[in-house]
Amino acid sequence: MLKDPAEKYRAFAPIALSDRTWPDKTITAAPLWCSVDLRDGNQALIEPMDTARKRRLFDLLVKTGFKEIEVGFPAASQTDFDFVRELIEQNLIPPDVTIQVLTQARSELIARSFEALRGARRAIMHLYNSTSTLQRRVVFGLDRPGIIDIAVKGAQWVREHAERQSDTEWVLQYSPESFTGTELDFAVEVCDAVNAVWQPTPQRKVILNLPATVEMATPNVYADQIEWFSRHIARRDSVILSVHPHNDRGTAVAAAELAVMAGADRVEGTLFGNGERTGNVDIVTLALNLYTQGVKPDLDFSNINEAARCVEYCNQLPIHPRHPYVGDLVFTAFSGSHQDAIKKGLAARQEESLWEVPYLPIDPRDVGRTYESVIRVNSQSGKGGIAYLLERDYDLTMPRRLQIEFSQVVQAVADASGKELSAEQIWALFADEYLGTQGDYVYGSHQLAHSRKDQNLERLTLKLKCRGQGTVLHGEGNGPIDALVDALGLQFDVLSYEEHSVGSGSDARAAAFVEITTPGRATLFGVGVHVNIITASLLAVLSAVNRAMRRGLLDDSIPAASAGG
Amino acid sequence: MLKDPAEKYRAFAPIALSDRTWPDKTITAAPLWCSVDLRDGNQALIEPMDTARKRRLFDLLVKTGFKEIEVGFPAASQTDFDFVRELIEQNLIPPDVTIQVLTQARSELIARSFEALRGARRAIMHLYNSTSTLQRRVVFGLDRPGIIDIAVKGAQWVREHAERQSDTEWVLQYSPESFTGTELDFAVEVCDAVNAVWQPTPQRKVILNLPATVEMATPNVYADQIEWFSRHIARRDSVILSVHPHNDRGTAVAAAELAVMAGADRVEGTLFGNGERTGNVDIVTLALNLYTQGVKPDLDFSNINEAARCVEYCNQLPIHPRHPYVGDLVFTAFSGSHQDAIKKGLAARQEESLWEVPYLPIDPRDVGRTYESVIRVNSQSGKGGIAYLLERDYDLTMPRRLQIEFSQVVQAVADASGKELSAEQIWALFADEYLGTQGDYVYGSHQLAHSRKDQNLERLTLKLKCRGQGTVLHGEGNGPIDALVDALGLQFDVLSYEEHSVGSGSDARAAAFVEITTPGRATLFGVGVHVNIITASLLAVLSAVNRAMRRGLLDDSIPAASAGG
Repeated sequence: MLKDPAEKYRAFAPIALSDRTWPDKTITAAPLWCSVDLRDGNQALIEPMDTARKRRLFDLLVKTGFKEIEVGFPAASQTDFDFVRELIEQNLIPPDVTIQVLTQARSELIARSFEALRGARRAIMHLYNSTSTLQRRVVFGLDRPGIIDIAVKGAQWVREHAERQSDTEWVLQYSPESFTGTELDFAVEVCDAVNAVWQPTPQRKVILNLPATVEMATPNVYADQIEWFSRHIARRDSVILSVHPHNDRGTAVAAAELAVMAGADRVEGTLFGNGERTGNVDIVTLALNLYTQGVKPDLDFSNINEAARCVEYCNQLPIHPRHPYVGDLVFTAFSGSHQDAIKKGLAARQEESLWEVPYLPIDPRDVGRTYESVIRVNSQSGKGGIAYLLERDYDLTMPRRLQIEFSQVVQAVADASGKELSAEQIWALFADEYLGTQGDYVYGSHQLAHSRKDQNLERLTLKLKCRGQGTVLHGEGNGPIDALVDALGLQFDVLSYEEHSVGSGSDARAAAFVEITTPGRATLFGVGVHVNIITASLLAVLSAVNRAMRRGLLDDSIPAASAGG
Repeated sequence: MLKDPAEKYRAFAPIALSDRTWPDKTITAAPLWCSVDLRDGNQALIEPMDTARKRRLFDLLVKTGFKEIEVGFPAASQTDFDFVRELIEQNLIPPDVTIQVLTQARSELIARSFEALRGARRAIMHLYNSTSTLQRRVVFGLDRPGIIDIAVKGAQWVREHAERQSDTEWVLQYSPESFTGTELDFAVEVCDAVNAVWQPTPQRKVILNLPATVEMATPNVYADQIEWFSRHIARRDSVILSVHPHNDRGTAVAAAELAVMAGADRVEGTLFGNGERTGNVDIVTLALNLYTQGVKPDLDFSNINEAARCVEYCNQLPIHPRHPYVGDLVFTAFSGSHQDAIKKGLAARQEESLWEVPYLPIDPRDVGRTYESVIRVNSQSGKGGIAYLLERDYDLTMPRRLQIEFSQVVQAVADASGKELSAEQIWALFADEYLGTQGDYVYGSHQLAHSRKDQNLERLTLKLKCRGQGTVLHGEGNGPIDALVDALGLQFDVLSYEEHSVGSGSDARAAAFVEITTPGRATLFGVGVHVNIITASLLAVLSAVNRAMRRGLLDDSIPAASAGG
C-alpha cells in the first residue's frame, strides 16, 4: 500500500488573490510561441539528436511558423555550440526567425554563449539561475540576497557582452528557474533587480520567463501566480511575460492556457510535448485548441502527419496513439452510436458553415487527416480480431495504422456478406489488397550499385511492367526506398517504413510496410513480402503506389519534378 | 496552411458565473472513483479485450482499490453480457465492490441490462441519453421536451425493473450525454425530471454524471459548468455529482481537478487514460496528484510498473514514456545540473521528513520505481550512443527500459576511465553484464513436453548448474518462461518479455529480453541470445535472476511458495 501521504507530502499553499480576473477571460489571440525542442527537448532524449536530426527539426519548426527557436545550450555542449555556428555560418536562419540560446549566470559560460552567436543578425540571450526556496537551501546554501547577486552579476555580464558585440540585435531574456517553487514576492524582486541592470523600454522589451520547472499544483494556482506576478512586476509595459510549463501533473496544457488568460504574452514549449521527465507543454495541442475556438494559432499544422513522423524520427520517441489531434486513434470511431451521430452530423453540414459534428471537435481534413469509422462485425474482435488472426496464423505483425486501414477493407466485405470472416478469408483479402500483382506498376527485377558520383548514394536499376509495358527505371538515393521514389518520379512522400521477419528457418521471409502520403494528403500503406529484404521493401512501395493509383489519389501524368510541393 | 478558423469554428460561450467559488478551493479529500476501463476504455480498442484480458484487468482494478467498476454495456454486446454473468455466477465481485453497467434509454435494452445483472448483490444501473443542442438537431430531430421524454421514459422503465428485481440493492445513475454541449438550464431540467421519477433521498442517493463527452473549452469552463449545475439542481443533498471528462484538448486531468474543486463528488475515468479518441481522464494521474499534495488517494499504485504492464497487455496499447508517474523516462535525469540538485536534495533529506527533492515531485519508491541519472560521457550520444552502436554493429535492438538500465552500467565504467567507449568495448560490457556464464544458475539443457494433467500446460525439464552443482529442475506453465519461473521457485515475477532475430540466414539467432520484478520492487532485465528462440528466452530469465542475485535483490533461501506475495 502507499504510505500515508500526510507524513511525506504537503499541499501547495494557495495564492492570496481573491480578486483574480483570469477566470472571466477567454483567449482571443495566440501568444508568442517559442520552441525549445532543440534545447530542453533534446537534452532529455535517451539518444540526443545528431546534427542531421537537429537540422531536420529546425527546418520543420521554421516551416511550421515559429519565429523564436531556442537552439541549444552552447556553453554546456560542444555539439550545441557547433550547431549554432552551422546555423549562422551557413545562413540557415530566415530573416523573420530569431534563435535563442540558454546560459547559466556564470562569466565564462556567458562569454562562450556570446561567442557561439557571433555574426547572428538577431538573437535572444536567455539567462537563468535557480531561485526556489528548496534549491536556495539544499543546492546553493544561499539566502535571498545571495541569489539576487548571482542574477544581477549575470545580467551585468550579459549587458557588457551585448554592448561589445553590437552588430547583433540582442533580445534579453531572464528566467528565475524553478519559479513555481519560489515565493512570489522574491520572484518579482529578482526580476526587478535584473531589469534594473537591463533597463528595458516599451520599444526594447525584456522577456521574463516564469518556468513551471516542476509542475507543483493544480493549474489554477499557476494562473494565480502569473496574474500576481504580472500585477506586481515593475515596468510591466517593457516586459514580455513568458511561461514555460512542464507536465509533471499532466496539466501543462491547462496551465499554459490559464496562464495566458492570466496575462502571459508568450509560451515556451515543444512539439507534441517532448522534454525532461514528463515533458514540456505541447505547443501543437495549444495551437490547435486555439484553432478550434476560432482563434488563429499563427502556426501551421495542416499536415500534422508529416510533423509527427519528423518529430518521431528526430526524438526517437513515439507519439501516443491517443495524443490530441495527432494520435493514430483520435479520429477513429469504434462505437456504433458515435458513428451514426457523426454520419448524421456530416450529412447535415453545409460546406461553408461552421464545423459542428458530434464527437469530432476538429475537421480531420484541417490537419491533413481523415475520419475513420471502424465497425466490428459480429465478434470480429478479441481472438477473432483481424490483427490477432493474421499474427497467429501468418506471423504477420501489422503496424497499428495499417491495422486501422485494413480493418476498413475487411469491414466493407463483411458488411456486404453479413458474416464473420475466417483467418483464411481475411488473409485472402489482405493479399488481394496489398500483395496483388494487378496494379499499374508490377515489379520484375532490380539491381543496386553505388552511385558513381557519390559513394554514399545507391543507384537502383529496376525492371518492371508499367500497365503491361516492360520498362526500365533508374534512380538514386540514400537507400533502396529513396532510390525507388527517385526512379518513379511521382508526387508522393514516404512517411514511415518498417520491416520484420515472417516465419523462420528456410521458410523465413521479410514483410516490409511502407506508408506514403499523396499530394491530397491521403496516407496509405503498401506491403511487400519476399525472401530478400530489399525486394520486400521495393514491393511495399509499389504496393502503396498501386493502391493510390487505383483510388485516383496519385496521377502519373504529373511527374514530381514539374509540380509544386 | 490552416484555413482561417474564424470561418469554421467559434469560441465556446463563457458561463455567466462571476461569483464562482471554485478558484479559492483546494482538494482536501479524494473523490469517489469509478473505473470505466472495461466499458468506455474497452469499446475504443482496436482489438477489444477477450474474457481473459477482462478478468485480468478487473482483478487489477479490485486490487488497486476501486469500489465502483463499470464492467460493460451488456445490452449492446453479447461478450459484455457474458462477462457480467461470469462475474456474478462465479462470485468474483468482492463484497465491497459494486459493478455498474451502461444502458441507453430504450425499453428492450433496459430489460436486457437488468437480465445481465440478475443475482448481483448490489449494482449501479447507468442510464443515458444524449442532450446536446447539436445532437438534438442533427441526430434526433427533437426539441427539448422530446429529449426529456426519452430520459423520463427510460427512468420509469429502470424504476419498474428495479422494483421487480428487488433482491439486488440498486444504485441508479443518469448521464445527460454530451453534457458539455448542452445548455446548462436544460441539463438541470432533464436531470430534475429524471429525479422526479427516481425520488432520491439523502439516504438513497442518485448519481448524476455530467460527461465531457467531447472536451470543448478550457478546463475552467468545465468547472464553471459543474459549479453552476451544482447550485441549480434540485435535491442536491440526494445527489452524488459525478464527472466523466474526455481529453480532446489535452486537459482532462485539469478539468477533473477543477470540477472536484467546483463540487463534483465522483470521477469516472480509466487507468492511464485509455478511452474513445484521445481517451478518458487518467485516474492514476489524478490519484497520485492528490498523493503528492498530502491527500490520501484511496487507490494503491505502490507498484505502478505492475499496473502499467497489466494495462498495456489488456489494452494492447503502449503507455507513453513521458506519461506522468509511470512513463519509462519520468524518473530519469539527463541534465547534469538536475542530477547535481537531486543528489544534494537527497543528501539533505532526513528519512522521516517531508519529501523535498528538486526535479522529483514524488519519491519514486512510493510507486515502486527508482531514480535514474543518465550522464552522457563525452559525446556518448547521437551516433556515438550506446543503443545506436549496438544496433548498427551487433544488430541488437534493446527495449527502451533496458537502454536506460544498461546506460548506467556503461556510465560507471566510462566515469572510471574518463574516456568514450568504442562499440567493441560497449559490447564486451553488455556481454559481461547480461550474457555471462558466471552466475549462480548456469543453463545446461532443457526438454519441453505437454503436461500429462493438462494439454494446455507445458512441462519443462531443465538441467543446470546451481553454484557449480549439477541439478535438474521441473516446472509447468502456459509456456516455457512460465514453466521456468515455476521450476525455479523463486520470489520474482516476469513483467515483460520480447524477442527478435539478430542477423539473418545461417547466422541468424534470437535475442530475448525479459524484465523481472523482485520482492523489493526492483525491476531488472535479463538477456539471452541463442539460435533456438526457446533457449534464448530461458537464458534471458536466468540472466535476470543471476543479476538480481549478484545485487542481493533476490534470495534463493526463501522459496516463493512459503513467502507472502
